[in-house]
Amino acid sequence: MKTGRLTDFSKLCIHTITTKPWKIEEAAENFSKAGVKGISVWRETLVGRDIMKTGELLRSNGLEIVSLVRGGFFPSISSGKRKKVIEDNRNAIEEAASLGCPMLVLVCGADPAQSLEISRSQIKEGIRILLPYAEEYNIKLAIEPLHPMYADTRSAISTLSQANDLAEYFNSPLVGVAVDVYHLWWDPDLEYQIKRCGANGHLFAFHICDWLSPTEDMLNDRGLMGEGCIPVGKIRSWVEKAGFTGFHEVEIFSTKHWTEDQYQFLKNIKKAYLENS
Amino acid sequence: MKTGRLTDFSKLCIHTITTKPWKIEEAAENFSKAGVKGISVWRETLVGRDIMKTGELLRSNGLEIVSLVRGGFFPSISSGKRKKVIEDNRNAIEEAASLGCPMLVLVCGADPAQSLEISRSQIKEGIRILLPYAEEYNIKLAIEPLHPMYADTRSAISTLSQANDLAEYFNSPLVGVAVDVYHLWWDPDLEYQIKRCGANGHLFAFHICDWLSPTEDMLNDRGLMGEGCIPVGKIRSWVEKAGFTGFHEVEIFSTKHWTEDQYQFLKNIKKAYLENS
Repeated sequence: MKTGRLTDFSKLCIHTITTKPWKIEEAAENFSKAGVKGISVWRETLVGRDIMKTGELLRSNGLEIVSLVRGGFFPSISSGKRKKVIEDNRNAIEEAASLGCPMLVLVCGADPAQSLEISRSQIKEGIRILLPYAEEYNIKLAIEPLHPMYADTRSAISTLSQANDLAEYFNSPLVGVAVDVYHLWWDPDLEYQIKRCGANGHLFAFHICDWLSPTEDMLNDRGLMGEGCIPVGKIRSWVEKAGFTGFHEVEIFSTKHWTEDQYQFLKNIKKAYLENS
Repeated sequence: MKTGRLTDFSKLCIHTITTKPWKIEEAAENFSKAGVKGISVWRETLVGRDIMKTGELLRSNGLEIVSLVRGGFFPSISSGKRKKVIEDNRNAIEEAASLGCPMLVLVCGADPAQSLEISRSQIKEGIRILLPYAEEYNIKLAIEPLHPMYADTRSAISTLSQANDLAEYFNSPLVGVAVDVYHLWWDPDLEYQIKRCGANGHLFAFHICDWLSPTEDMLNDRGLMGEGCIPVGKIRSWVEKAGFTGFHEVEIFSTKHWTEDQYQFLKNIKKAYLENS
């Protein structure tokens, strides 16, 4: 299958975590100057801000607010913690609404003190409780399957197949999935599962970065597109064939890249986006 | 489903890598004294030995030689390297035969410089070339799917479903799969896939250890059963229900456990085996 080459930045979105050293105000200004068109906002960047005004600031910089990151983390062996996290997710939905952001990304969570099956049922229950709030504020919930190496503490939803099952179970225009190449590139079933969520209207988001060989840290050693072995362009072609027309969100956690000059890093992101995505 | 509790060591096998500080002669003596009944031999422990005599030594210590570890690593972007690795696999089959060991474990390999699809086709080709040698020496080949976090360099076969597909493709009494809880515990399809390989006579081996939270090193931070979050007993019940009656092979790579007193570690393995497997 031929992949159309990316030739401009009209679909380029960057997560605030990618340029973590920058405050959100700096990210807004620098992304804007660089011609980046979308921003996905990590909640910690909003602490101490007037969220509505921050949303206005982002828009006044010509940025579309693509998603708020992140809700979820539903499972816990403690019922008290499960209740608390529902509160936190309600807050996240209200924050998204205040920000003027249409979508909340869900990192579903897992608790190693209980079975994956129980964690999965608590995830389903969490989304069930949350959905009326999402409807009230008209915020989409994007279930993001995480790499199986995070199945102990971060996500009992490890494959796109599982995320699709969940989205189909809820059968709501507000419940869909986020496809992140980092988490899913290894899956022999990926092309089919992308087709499946596209056909069902559940393909809400597309996250890109790369897998480094060797990967030296399980959390904060992601690569820039082209630095590793993920066929980002090929997966993008599957996503596009499935009908996705949204942003390509660059989401890189990298201790190494965070220590670089972030202006240069932003230039490198743009180059990698055109050449290796 | 109720799992029968383990009450003796008649099915306990330990990989030589688990007690890496011990030479194979020490492992043989100490496993034997501890009442361990099986040993899986890592090839590097045989370097400089007369392999037939080493096999006799192991048997004279009352140990059944369960598997030789490891062959595989078929894929490479270099055709020269692919040819060389076939040679190495032939040697491994001859070593298994000399040792009196009925099975070679295949870690199938991957090359991040090429696509997973190409690596997978090279794995299939490698096994195809190897199978006549395996038949000549009557050595079983156990395809071991590895955790998706190793998909870049160690195995393009990441799920039991893929390994089952391969084993069914070859449809030979000498090609089957190795189920390792460390690599597969996260998979929502695991119970079904274990049933599938059991029904087809392809369930050749069962490896146990645990997944630590947090895992601090992607390769050498495996836990002893009970130290982490893998439901080893539950997975063992699936394996037994699928008709498996072979050894439970303790395979732990752990920088931490390797620095402990290995006699005490062996005691701890036996305790963990009875209590948490």
